[in-house]
Amino acid sequence: MLRREYENQNCSIARTLEVVGERWSLLIVRDVLLGVHRFDDLVERLRITRSVLTVRLERLVGAGVLSRQPYQQRPVRYEYHLTDKGRQLWPILIHLMRWGDEHYAGPQGPPRVFEHIDCGGHPDDHLCCDRCAEPLHADNTKSRRSPTHASAGREHIRQGT
Amino acid sequence: MLRREYENQNCSIARTLEVVGERWSLLIVRDVLLGVHRFDDLVERLRITRSVLTVRLERLVGAGVLSRQPYQQRPVRYEYHLTDKGRQLWPILIHLMRWGDEHYAGPQGPPRVFEHIDCGGHPDDHLCCDRCAEPLHADNTKSRRSPTHASAGREHIRQGT
Repeated sequence: MLRREYENQNCSIARTLEVVGERWSLLIVRDVLLGVHRFDDLVERLRITRSVLTVRLERLVGAGVLSRQPYQQRPVRYEYHLTDKGRQLWPILIHLMRWGDEHYAGPQGPPRVFEHIDCGGHPDDHLCCDRCAEPLHADNTKSRRSPTHASAGREHIRQGT
Repeated sequence: MLRREYENQNCSIARTLEVVGERWSLLIVRDVLLGVHRFDDLVERLRITRSVLTVRLERLVGAGVLSRQPYQQRPVRYEYHLTDKGRQLWPILIHLMRWGDEHYAGPQGPPRVFEHIDCGGHPDDHLCCDRCAEPLHADNTKSRRSPTHASAGREHIRQGT
């Protein structure tokens, strides 16, 4: 038994999934990356219960993926931002998005695109810019609703994290 | 309400997580990628209940991530293999592994490494070979327990999928 337990627990994929391996946690990281930093905004965007969001945020802060920063006193209110460790989840999110784009985008095509800020290119299979070949990461890309989806609703996500 | 629902559901990350967004599904894909193809072997490796594994496998087959191939008649027994769509999850798994390696590997270092079959190099931040720069994917890499973990248990995972 010990050997099996060791093998399973001592896997970096399993350990990562313990931190971000259910739907809500990665969707919270996605929204914070897209610029949604406040509790009430996350509740509205994700349509998640306040109690579940509270638990997930505490877990992500405890794991060092998000940091809590006060933006108001009396009463104290906090914004949630990605730490460096959290920003390192960017490749996982982009590959999840690309896989979903390929297999689940409807006739309108992918709902959202990530662009290289400098030249407007997009991430290729290896997350380099398909236009200028520069390696892409969370800090040199921005996300926007794709043109074919522009009419679906106002674009209310602020850029930047 | 419609707008919010649309925004949430029409996200490629959310849609992908609906298919592979809980711990078991990605760990099943991981093990099939590593060469574990049979139901009883998956039960033993994952320490998952047979009923949960049955449901997860059906879901992954239904989503076109895994295919079922008979390896025995009377009674019919099946092996599970990754489809092309399933193999396209490789970058997600490797980035999950790299993130876990960086933040959760113990003093012995990462438990498992992926190597470029041709030259023995490893995936860099952009999943190219850090030795010869060739783009890496599921078909030109192999996985093995890292040397520092070699004594933890016999290496019983067959290579190839």
